[in-house]
Amino acid sequence: MSTTRKRLAEILQPYRIRDKASNYVDVFLISLIFLNVLDVIMESVSEFHSAYETQLLWFEVFSIAVFSVEYLLRIWTCVDLDAHDTRPHWRQRLAYFFSPMALIDLLAILPFFLSLFISIDLRFLRVLRILRIFKLTRYSTAMQLILNVFREEQNSFIAAFSMLLTLLIIAASGIYLIEHDVQPDEFGSIPQAMWWAMATLTTVGYGDVTPITNGGKFFGGLITIISMGMVALPTGILASGFNVQMHRREQKFNILLKDILRDGIVTDQEWSDLEVLRKELDLNAEEAEMLIQLSEAKKIQLQDCPHCGSILHPSRRSEDK
Amino acid sequence: MSTTRKRLAEILQPYRIRDKASNYVDVFLISLIFLNVLDVIMESVSEFHSAYETQLLWFEVFSIAVFSVEYLLRIWTCVDLDAHDTRPHWRQRLAYFFSPMALIDLLAILPFFLSLFISIDLRFLRVLRILRIFKLTRYSTAMQLILNVFREEQNSFIAAFSMLLTLLIIAASGIYLIEHDVQPDEFGSIPQAMWWAMATLTTVGYGDVTPITNGGKFFGGLITIISMGMVALPTGILASGFNVQMHRREQKFNILLKDILRDGIVTDQEWSDLEVLRKELDLNAEEAEMLIQLSEAKKIQLQDCPHCGSILHPSRRSEDK
Amino acid sequence: MSTTRKRLAEILQPYRIRDKASNYVDVFLISLIFLNVLDVIMESVSEFHSAYETQLLWFEVFSIAVFSVEYLLRIWTCVDLDAHDTRPHWRQRLAYFFSPMALIDLLAILPFFLSLFISIDLRFLRVLRILRIFKLTRYSTAMQLILNVFREEQNSFIAAFSMLLTLLIIAASGIYLIEHDVQPDEFGSIPQAMWWAMATLTTVGYGDVTPITNGGKFFGGLITIISMGMVALPTGILASGFNVQMHRREQKFNILLKDILRDGIVTDQEWSDLEVLRKELDLNAEEAEMLIQLSEAKKIQLQDCPHCGSILHPSRRSEDK
Amino acid sequence: MSTTRKRLAEILQPYRIRDKASNYVDVFLISLIFLNVLDVIMESVSEFHSAYETQLLWFEVFSIAVFSVEYLLRIWTCVDLDAHDTRPHWRQRLAYFFSPMALIDLLAILPFFLSLFISIDLRFLRVLRILRIFKLTRYSTAMQLILNVFREEQNSFIAAFSMLLTLLIIAASGIYLIEHDVQPDEFGSIPQAMWWAMATLTTVGYGDVTPITNGGKFFGGLITIISMGMVALPTGILASGFNVQMHRREQKFNILLKDILRDGIVTDQEWSDLEVLRKELDLNAEEAEMLIQLSEAKKIQLQDCPHCGSILHPSRRSEDK
Repeated sequence: MSTTRKRLAEILQPYRIRDKASNYVDVFLISLIFLNVLDVIMESVSEFHSAYETQLLWFEVFSIAVFSVEYLLRIWTCVDLDAHDTRPHWRQRLAYFFSPMALIDLLAILPFFLSLFISIDLRFLRVLRILRIFKLTRYSTAMQLILNVFREEQNSFIAAFSMLLTLLIIAASGIYLIEHDVQPDEFGSIPQAMWWAMATLTTVGYGDVTPITNGGKFFGGLITIISMGMVALPTGILASGFNVQMHRREQKFNILLKDILRDGIVTDQEWSDLEVLRKELDLNAEEAEMLIQLSEAKKIQLQDCPHCGSILHPSRRSEDK
Repeated sequence: MSTTRKRLAEILQPYRIRDKASNYVDVFLISLIFLNVLDVIMESVSEFHSAYETQLLWFEVFSIAVFSVEYLLRIWTCVDLDAHDTRPHWRQRLAYFFSPMALIDLLAILPFFLSLFISIDLRFLRVLRILRIFKLTRYSTAMQLILNVFREEQNSFIAAFSMLLTLLIIAASGIYLIEHDVQPDEFGSIPQAMWWAMATLTTVGYGDVTPITNGGKFFGGLITIISMGMVALPTGILASGFNVQMHRREQKFNILLKDILRDGIVTDQEWSDLEVLRKELDLNAEEAEMLIQLSEAKKIQLQDCPHCGSILHPSRRSEDK
Repeated sequence: MSTTRKRLAEILQPYRIRDKASNYVDVFLISLIFLNVLDVIMESVSEFHSAYETQLLWFEVFSIAVFSVEYLLRIWTCVDLDAHDTRPHWRQRLAYFFSPMALIDLLAILPFFLSLFISIDLRFLRVLRILRIFKLTRYSTAMQLILNVFREEQNSFIAAFSMLLTLLIIAASGIYLIEHDVQPDEFGSIPQAMWWAMATLTTVGYGDVTPITNGGKFFGGLITIISMGMVALPTGILASGFNVQMHRREQKFNILLKDILRDGIVTDQEWSDLEVLRKELDLNAEEAEMLIQLSEAKKIQLQDCPHCGSILHPSRRSEDK
Repeated sequence: MSTTRKRLAEILQPYRIRDKASNYVDVFLISLIFLNVLDVIMESVSEFHSAYETQLLWFEVFSIAVFSVEYLLRIWTCVDLDAHDTRPHWRQRLAYFFSPMALIDLLAILPFFLSLFISIDLRFLRVLRILRIFKLTRYSTAMQLILNVFREEQNSFIAAFSMLLTLLIIAASGIYLIEHDVQPDEFGSIPQAMWWAMATLTTVGYGDVTPITNGGKFFGGLITIISMGMVALPTGILASGFNVQMHRREQKFNILLKDILRDGIVTDQEWSDLEVLRKELDLNAEEAEMLIQLSEAKKIQLQDCPHCGSILHPSRRSEDK
């Protein structure tokens, strides 16, 4: 029983390089996700929908069946994911149940079952199935890096968002005061004026609603200029966030490197550890080599004794004694 | 008297972790600020306004009363904020009165009292109450970081703004010369043409006013391309500003770290100092650990004596003598 | 034969500084590329096309002839490009044939010959000739740097693109659900709603199609705000990518520098090697000088002996013994 | 004669801190420039122009007179700007004549004199007077920093611009092929389609011209997504450029710092040199202090002798001998 569960957990996990079963399951699930997204999109085209109604329904049922089985298996096998986790099984399963990935999985299948029990039409909820795309993040380190940056900089993003919100309210209030007498249909209330404020402060600028009085154009121009700063804010935060991540990956590599170089002997095991870390950190080979060269250079320089003039190669230290 | 004032100053200050009274006051004031912003927005919706006129008035009076008392208490207790400030009390209060935060607080309550004494309708000034939102910056280190970046890079922003202004004038003058004969209503004067110039140079691009002659489209296209550089300017400044802040926080941490590691013994007190600084700088725990590891590695490497080959651990130094 | 081929290979390669023949060929080919692009653009202007029909045809024939000869010569001589390549000639030529540059060259001439053999009108394929512009990247290190950044960060770009795609689908689905009853012509299906979603999420914001219901405007406003993050993503990735490239160039320079300074004697040969590397890396002269100064400073500091207090200049080391 | 010229050169130069005459001249000239810009803008408003015609003319004549005298004096005194310049005076004046600043000065006054001699109306050239604003860059280090970044990264900007140009041509050609049959008025030729391409690739997005066919919308959507990359390019270049500048300023400071700390004694003169450099580099005081602390820490660490355990303070070194 426990062995079957363990094997299933392995198969459901991505990235098992030489595990054929796991790879087949991965490819199958990804394809099914993509086909489902395509299905949701195409179903909205009425000609297509009426032409293939039966086929679409069967595909729907098949997908939900597969995803439901997958979901249940993941809940069941999640206790084998972390061997060091000593909590009771039900607590591990509960924790997994509330993890974002599992919730997305649930949201992808729930609307179908809800539509069986509730008479009101919840068909539009099926669009949430698109969130299955996020399952793919399991397969991409670059996407995880981006999500990491968003997560680490979330305080800054929240702060930037509240500044945007403040400015939105000020912009909407200002344009409402100036324009609501002249254009009562477009700027009749602050919530209504918000549509213009959002289009302007994000530099989208639809132009379906614009101020027409001189005062409104002057105020609108001011908001237009402030919008440059607003757009710059998330970009600046992200750019800095990416820099920090890159820097940190180099530092991690450097720490291991220093550790390895300390005893003066670089064993084959240590070299392969370094290579594994390099790949894990998604560090460019050229980058890594340069870090090694710079580090080695420093090391040898430090061992270049100013008193005897000899260069102490790490491996020669024992002979010196 | 002075003890009451001191206690009140403590309560009104945010961030007193184990001070229940202070926390309740904080939550109450923040909620009231948010409700007031909501009030200003909803009052502009005429159906809502006429339906709840009396309630809104009473909420208005209540809010102003609370904020007025808060404002007066802050002015009174501000002399206890900095124990090292030896200036006479009236000068400290005057300085606090003209601080940006105190001015925003004043602007939030003043329009109400003005409307009591002056007969002309200053109701629109009530929208300034929205600025109370900025009080919240007291509660967010991330927002203070963003404001810091804006403040430190203000020279660059002013320079970027004057370049934008120059380009605005050139763009408006150019399009005026080319288009004012064909579209006298839209480009009748340079100030009028400024509306198009602002929408274009900030890449908002409403499209309510666009050049129609070939010459105008050619010139407009040029401005369009220049706009990419204009939008890039504040973003580049901000991105670099965030990098500098991050770098500086790491350096601050490194300075304390070096100081601590110098004598070779890291006491428990020093470790907790480090942790306090880390939280103050909003440094990621992982980040901090890496800085420590890198620093320690360097330290030990330096103590790796080239003469005897032994590694001198900091704590063993006294034995060596 | 082989000597002629070698000489031709040299002539066709860019950047042979003192090779007059090569330079003339370069200038001629670049001019012809530019004239061809201009030709494609001007041919679309019907007055111009009818006025100069014969001339344009002859120019067309002449250009194709030149580019065909150039293409064949490049295929023939490509085996001399890399003297260390020991693969048989046909394999080298095959590899060159499928290189992006060679494919662009082929795409630029193929449509003309196809139009001779196939009766259907493939004239519109001539527009692909514009891709000849990319040949110019051979002449610009700055453009190669930009392409490098794009290539190295391609994983991040793919990840950012899939996030954009996900959001596009969610935005289009959402607005379709909300607006397709009210505006069946604009938001009649998800693929149709995609046009609005793309214009909004990229902050282009044409405004030809906009939501008109309150719900649609609320959802549209949300998407509008998310668009700021979407636009920030590629910018942040690129900004960080450029930083990494700059940092790496400095590191490369530092590695050579350390190597040179290690033995304490900087020969004239080493100085000129350094200068060659500096130009290759497109490093500012000021930048390079600072790197040297910083490096030297460090070196001398290390040689400042704490035991005797004397400063050991590299060249004096041998005398000390 | 030469003394008068020298004094005049001093007066015309900005930034002479304790030179009252120079400061008065600066303020006067800056005010006049601003008033002239305002004059050009206001003259375009027809009501204003007709109301103050005479006054505007006299102001015009007065300004041109002042700027002409200033221009001639600058040409005359420029030989005193650089005492080390040994070229003959006429060559120095010629070089100054062709410097960008001098050309802008000339362009600002030339149109007026031209209108006296040539009968055709060159009044529109007066708008060039706005370029006088760029004179102000003499007074702002932040603006000079920005211009520096633009100058140093100009190769990257040119490369980015040629990529934009290539994409513009491809986008315009593509949309022309797809849409010119359906919308012959908007997309009748590639140059005409360029207007849409420019508005789209720069994310301005006027929306006055948009594709209406399904194919056109698909292609337009692709261009829309590519536009995000195009907008990211100059921003990324600028962000990296600002980082480099900041880094370089720190390095410059570090070089002087290391030089000063080398001999172990920091004289008062050296401290004030450091302060002068800090201000010149526009380095934050906090930043500078941290650089000093980090540098000192390193220095002392190096002098912390591992054999005797004593910390060798720089000033105690002589006693040790």
